[in-house]
Amino acid sequence: MSADMKPIIKLGVPKGSLEEATINLFERAGWKIRKHTRNYFPDINDPDITASLCRVQEIGGYIEAGVLDVGITGLDWLTESNHDGNVVHVSDLVYSKTSNRPCRWVLAVAGDAPYRTAADLAGKRIATELEGMTRRYFENAGVKVDVFYSWGATEAKVVEGLADAIVEVTETGTTIRAHGLRIIDEVMISYPVLIANKEAWADPRKRAKIEQLDLLLQGALRAENLVALKMNAPSDNLAAILEMLPSLNSPTVSPLRDEKWLSVESVVQIDVVRDLIPRLREAGAEGIIEFALNKVI
Amino acid sequence: MSADMKPIIKLGVPKGSLEEATINLFERAGWKIRKHTRNYFPDINDPDITASLCRVQEIGGYIEAGVLDVGITGLDWLTESNHDGNVVHVSDLVYSKTSNRPCRWVLAVAGDAPYRTAADLAGKRIATELEGMTRRYFENAGVKVDVFYSWGATEAKVVEGLADAIVEVTETGTTIRAHGLRIIDEVMISYPVLIANKEAWADPRKRAKIEQLDLLLQGALRAENLVALKMNAPSDNLAAILEMLPSLNSPTVSPLRDEKWLSVESVVQIDVVRDLIPRLREAGAEGIIEFALNKVI
Amino acid sequence: MSADMKPIIKLGVPKGSLEEATINLFERAGWKIRKHTRNYFPDINDPDITASLCRVQEIGGYIEAGVLDVGITGLDWLTESNHDGNVVHVSDLVYSKTSNRPCRWVLAVAGDAPYRTAADLAGKRIATELEGMTRRYFENAGVKVDVFYSWGATEAKVVEGLADAIVEVTETGTTIRAHGLRIIDEVMISYPVLIANKEAWADPRKRAKIEQLDLLLQGALRAENLVALKMNAPSDNLAAILEMLPSLNSPTVSPLRDEKWLSVESVVQIDVVRDLIPRLREAGAEGIIEFALNKVI
Amino acid sequence: MSADMKPIIKLGVPKGSLEEATINLFERAGWKIRKHTRNYFPDINDPDITASLCRVQEIGGYIEAGVLDVGITGLDWLTESNHDGNVVHVSDLVYSKTSNRPCRWVLAVAGDAPYRTAADLAGKRIATELEGMTRRYFENAGVKVDVFYSWGATEAKVVEGLADAIVEVTETGTTIRAHGLRIIDEVMISYPVLIANKEAWADPRKRAKIEQLDLLLQGALRAENLVALKMNAPSDNLAAILEMLPSLNSPTVSPLRDEKWLSVESVVQIDVVRDLIPRLREAGAEGIIEFALNKVI
Amino acid sequence: MSADMKPIIKLGVPKGSLEEATINLFERAGWKIRKHTRNYFPDINDPDITASLCRVQEIGGYIEAGVLDVGITGLDWLTESNHDGNVVHVSDLVYSKTSNRPCRWVLAVAGDAPYRTAADLAGKRIATELEGMTRRYFENAGVKVDVFYSWGATEAKVVEGLADAIVEVTETGTTIRAHGLRIIDEVMISYPVLIANKEAWADPRKRAKIEQLDLLLQGALRAENLVALKMNAPSDNLAAILEMLPSLNSPTVSPLRDEKWLSVESVVQIDVVRDLIPRLREAGAEGIIEFALNKVI
Amino acid sequence: MSADMKPIIKLGVPKGSLEEATINLFERAGWKIRKHTRNYFPDINDPDITASLCRVQEIGGYIEAGVLDVGITGLDWLTESNHDGNVVHVSDLVYSKTSNRPCRWVLAVAGDAPYRTAADLAGKRIATELEGMTRRYFENAGVKVDVFYSWGATEAKVVEGLADAIVEVTETGTTIRAHGLRIIDEVMISYPVLIANKEAWADPRKRAKIEQLDLLLQGALRAENLVALKMNAPSDNLAAILEMLPSLNSPTVSPLRDEKWLSVESVVQIDVVRDLIPRLREAGAEGIIEFALNKVI
Repeated sequence: MSADMKPIIKLGVPKGSLEEATINLFERAGWKIRKHTRNYFPDINDPDITASLCRVQEIGGYIEAGVLDVGITGLDWLTESNHDGNVVHVSDLVYSKTSNRPCRWVLAVAGDAPYRTAADLAGKRIATELEGMTRRYFENAGVKVDVFYSWGATEAKVVEGLADAIVEVTETGTTIRAHGLRIIDEVMISYPVLIANKEAWADPRKRAKIEQLDLLLQGALRAENLVALKMNAPSDNLAAILEMLPSLNSPTVSPLRDEKWLSVESVVQIDVVRDLIPRLREAGAEGIIEFALNKVI
Repeated sequence: MSADMKPIIKLGVPKGSLEEATINLFERAGWKIRKHTRNYFPDINDPDITASLCRVQEIGGYIEAGVLDVGITGLDWLTESNHDGNVVHVSDLVYSKTSNRPCRWVLAVAGDAPYRTAADLAGKRIATELEGMTRRYFENAGVKVDVFYSWGATEAKVVEGLADAIVEVTETGTTIRAHGLRIIDEVMISYPVLIANKEAWADPRKRAKIEQLDLLLQGALRAENLVALKMNAPSDNLAAILEMLPSLNSPTVSPLRDEKWLSVESVVQIDVVRDLIPRLREAGAEGIIEFALNKVI
Repeated sequence: MSADMKPIIKLGVPKGSLEEATINLFERAGWKIRKHTRNYFPDINDPDITASLCRVQEIGGYIEAGVLDVGITGLDWLTESNHDGNVVHVSDLVYSKTSNRPCRWVLAVAGDAPYRTAADLAGKRIATELEGMTRRYFENAGVKVDVFYSWGATEAKVVEGLADAIVEVTETGTTIRAHGLRIIDEVMISYPVLIANKEAWADPRKRAKIEQLDLLLQGALRAENLVALKMNAPSDNLAAILEMLPSLNSPTVSPLRDEKWLSVESVVQIDVVRDLIPRLREAGAEGIIEFALNKVI
Repeated sequence: MSADMKPIIKLGVPKGSLEEATINLFERAGWKIRKHTRNYFPDINDPDITASLCRVQEIGGYIEAGVLDVGITGLDWLTESNHDGNVVHVSDLVYSKTSNRPCRWVLAVAGDAPYRTAADLAGKRIATELEGMTRRYFENAGVKVDVFYSWGATEAKVVEGLADAIVEVTETGTTIRAHGLRIIDEVMISYPVLIANKEAWADPRKRAKIEQLDLLLQGALRAENLVALKMNAPSDNLAAILEMLPSLNSPTVSPLRDEKWLSVESVVQIDVVRDLIPRLREAGAEGIIEFALNKVI
Repeated sequence: MSADMKPIIKLGVPKGSLEEATINLFERAGWKIRKHTRNYFPDINDPDITASLCRVQEIGGYIEAGVLDVGITGLDWLTESNHDGNVVHVSDLVYSKTSNRPCRWVLAVAGDAPYRTAADLAGKRIATELEGMTRRYFENAGVKVDVFYSWGATEAKVVEGLADAIVEVTETGTTIRAHGLRIIDEVMISYPVLIANKEAWADPRKRAKIEQLDLLLQGALRAENLVALKMNAPSDNLAAILEMLPSLNSPTVSPLRDEKWLSVESVVQIDVVRDLIPRLREAGAEGIIEFALNKVI
Repeated sequence: MSADMKPIIKLGVPKGSLEEATINLFERAGWKIRKHTRNYFPDINDPDITASLCRVQEIGGYIEAGVLDVGITGLDWLTESNHDGNVVHVSDLVYSKTSNRPCRWVLAVAGDAPYRTAADLAGKRIATELEGMTRRYFENAGVKVDVFYSWGATEAKVVEGLADAIVEVTETGTTIRAHGLRIIDEVMISYPVLIANKEAWADPRKRAKIEQLDLLLQGALRAENLVALKMNAPSDNLAAILEMLPSLNSPTVSPLRDEKWLSVESVVQIDVVRDLIPRLREAGAEGIIEFALNKVI
């Protein structure tokens, strides 16, 4: 590559449970990623980026090795694989397959088992997909246990009597409870993180591109929980209406031809709208409309 | 529950053919309902509500008995089950699985049968899922028939010779006609209704919550058939342009920096737009854009 | 039909690979087309139109014969079937199943075959679904080959040794390459076209309806690649900000109550936004939001 | 129909959960039933029979009314609908969707509920799809309860707190237990039954056809649990080998050219074979083969 | 290939509607054909054969050209494509996707159309996938019509008013009738045929292999409609029992140790068994068993 | 458990790719295993056995630890996990998901890579699911490489440039080649093995049950490749016919009533039949039938 050519950024996109949510997030951020049935390099509509779909467990290693420049992985696997010290942790991107909450790795036992704390498990068999983190957790607690690797369907191992406890990931605890298990501790909180290779981060042109990715991904993520509200407000009650609107983004107030009214537009949290609208109506607001947003920067 | 705690509203959400449309409607109204694979209580992102998924035929009974406080059911099943006098009919919510039209329960016979009116069916066999309503219909008509309950696939019973006529629900008549049947009367018009338990309605705090649900569900339903149109209008032809815009919601007119133009924004019916846009262009409007709305209050 | 009745326009909608994209395009343009499982006439929410779903290969013939008045077909099949001279080519609608790019009919051979140009294929067997166009292509090139009709899975024929080369359609070349084939020439560029029957076009009332269809379909198509950007701009740096915004649609600038700021709204290309937003922020813009559009006229 | 024409038998085949098992049983019995996608009369390869697919709940009523001559329904629905006294109960056909065991209607409560017997449920709410039978069960027990009809997903009603107990069908109890419920009584044993219209049974020619159906269906059902075993047995140990073989069907012994050996063939229960084979080998049997059977009469 | 090497036979297997039935037939005949997801050459467990999956319309051409040695195609497409004179028609294999009946190409019109014979269609539009055969049919009848090629969903064209009649394939007429069409003539009877390349047939070693294929495919096809019946017959009524058994394959009678009985085994038509078994039982036969056959030669 | 109670055998059944084939094999061997949707212990129709579905990678560990008594795992995972010395290797069961061939773990590189042998890969990155075995393979070869664990889709890693070579399992090599890879060495041959816990094997009653499982599984496996052939042979050519039949299982010859003929029955390999039948016919055999077998002991 000659000195004045723009560098190509190699981007790792997580395959599997985060895949669809990640591709949707990039689309709202401004990049269309299109997969091919028989090909492992998805298209991305930016000549400065090439994308690879990789297992979330492997992305940290590829970025450390420089095979990729930047990517999204989970904080859990980054920690487990010991790559976290050797890559740049650019930012947190708190989203998931079904919600925008972080997930939790928890310690769980059979609902009717006598164990109440990690200490009660001394000498027992613990199944998990996150062996390293689980071993460190019990070492820190000073409890000696037999940790073994589980190839999926981890909850079932307690039901089947193959393990005494598990360390497993969950968003809401539903699957854990559906197997009749009981959570006795939280081992780790995890969520997607944007990470970069150290050399790529040190190269100013690559870093600028990575920061652009970060800015727009964050803007798209923020917009998921926000909507735009627009209304006509009576001039003589404007102050009361403005006070109701959240202070996060200051509302835009513009004059109308009819001077008794003003147009007010604001960006508000989705789950606040349902309580806000009845109060705005009482304060005299009319013609209230709500619409969805792609990005909020 | 102590006197100053907020009451929890128990909400019934119809399972089955209306389920997806109802969950989408709540989402636009501001409530996310998330189902779990192995659990009968869906999550709802409002600490003041617990939701249950129930068969549409059963919701009326649960609300009458106070097992639920508020819910959505069909007018047809509400009437059939005789719960309509014992619950509060809060409002109508005219939507369906595929459109926003009410559905109809019709009396249909084989395409080549000699029957033209209900009276022609005296002594014949009538299959239906709505036995009570069908019996009342024929009693009112003074016609004696043999009504029997049909466990689904009702149209086929005429084709197979197992029934002489049916009373069946239809939106567009397509399935009826596809079986070679002919509609000879309309027995009932039906659509979803929001109903509440009488005691819940009498409790001011519960009623306020139910009215909030109603206000926002109506706002979301209204928005489905509306879009926002925005354009730059020449100041000297503003009156003509304003006259074209439907009077439903009065348009918002705001000044622009360039005083020869004004910004005009209006909310209009989706199926009017296609005729309106060519006329607005002729009247000098420029930069016309259209965007979708979540709610219109 | 009496002279003062509005004529009904018979519209042909392509079935198969373009079907879903076409129905979505009509929806954004303002017409809802709803298919029935057991019926070949989809509903359309316009009393002046009846719609038929037809194979894209057949629409040209039906429009020439006057069985349909207007429809969407592919330029490839229009040319292949020799209907192009006998219908009115109203406009081009460049969209496809997965993108908004035209597709290409290419001449391809096995990756390791010695052929470099069409001339190298003299005396060889060519499989294609577009026999006429392929014959004309080789006649124009003065090369004698054995063209035969392929019933689908055309790429596989070279792999199986049943053909020496193929002429096949592709958007990105991915499927061609996945079969190990190499493209050696481009035979034709194709995309959907809106065509009309000559007599229908000559009837002023039918023509007005066809032109309305064209205007709104074009508006919806344009909106797919555009978004609305809205921001608060500091009055003293407005000029710099306006200069950044693409000149395509001139931005709308409106005063705010706080005179140090102005509201700026513009319609910009989706793939420009990601580079534009960082620069707008540097120039002092605040509260930048982006939202999607249904139509841009 | 003239006196010497063979009568046509109208046969009801249960639609839904028993459908596939029933069609397979008829195939092994000698009748191929072939369904059509758009037609309610399946083909059957016997000119003396016309078949209809009907809901299992409705077959009893059609046979009583003479709309059908013969059919397969469940003992449960036959009893529930009060048709059992008005039709001929030809024979029992003990098979099901997944096994050849009868199913059971059981009374079940929440796993942690205090109820131990039906009597403990006085004044409680009981959900079921078999209202009549459930009412009779509690009347016989002298217990007053509130029975209400359940539109499916009955187990969930206890979990959701909508019912205190249920009466529901089960084969193995798995689904009941998977919902955390506990069975406290068995209300009824059910299985498919072959029933006939009384007049059809009184007509000697129709009855002969119905008895032929019965003979061959029973033969096919019996064969499902049997296999043929064939072996060469040493002449001098024949008695010991014959003694091991079940006496149900006496084994066929035939001479071989080599007079030291005899060929022995027997029909045995599938679940006995695995214990029988090791013992036959010890007794000197050789060349043991096992094969499946369509019918055993 | 040196003179003493065994030649490899290239076999064409029809892809699409006959594919599964053909692979099953080959399996019973003794050849396992296994498809690969990403490969067009299925495996076949015979080192002397290589198999290709091809469209049934194309197999005739490939065999004429010598690209394939032998294959299965339909008599209809063989005739349509004019390859029938240039290949060896080895034998007929009457099977289909769902039954073992030949299919029919029929001339059909709208149920309420006035046309009763081909002659009534003079000057009308005829849609079909078999253009050549349809043209010859009308030429032979001396009727001038406008035949055009239909790209599938041919029945719908009459319903949509795009054609006045169709020539379409059907097994039972069900789909034709489900579209409300009426059959007015039968244009051709068709079924699969085994065809061979002329030079392959002239090569004695290739011909031997093709004849082996034919022998075993015919044996497997025959076995589909046959079952083996085996019973113990009383010696003193043997003649009566043997007389009942079809003469097609003479029954095998073998002595038993108990001289009062004989073992009788016979191969009989599946649809005769149900009438035969009751009569055999009346004649004293015992221990009747029936089992399925892979091949009958 | 009292001394005279029969012990219960705990059986491990492999979940995933071998699951369906294993359940089918057990069914032919005489045990029906029925899975439950919401439960991890499948039913098995033998009161002396309880079955668990486990990942094939984990079964070795459970049997070594005595959590299970007997089970089926793959030779590959048994070796990889170092359990092979600590369990009893009862027998080999050569079957797979799609065939009855062993599978192979192979070393593969990009089709156009320069590597010809393991030695060429010194210093390169090797992806595999079988890390231990791959490390030992390269150590034995004296080649230093960087082996890393692959979470599935291993072939794609070479295509994407994430690995230089892979060690991956394959039956036919099809998937390897479909990714454009080239096999350069075979690392291991693998197939299912029946293994037992050492203490269970030392207990005579448990061992007897394990040997019964082995005998019948082997019998069912053998039957998959065999069929029964039965024919009438002319007495005067019997010797020639018997000579043609494979010597594996000596044919059963029995007298017929007609002394000019003898009945001959033999068990032969499926893939020999197609060549055998034409020769048997030439030797005078008649009424040849073939039927399938469940078990051959």
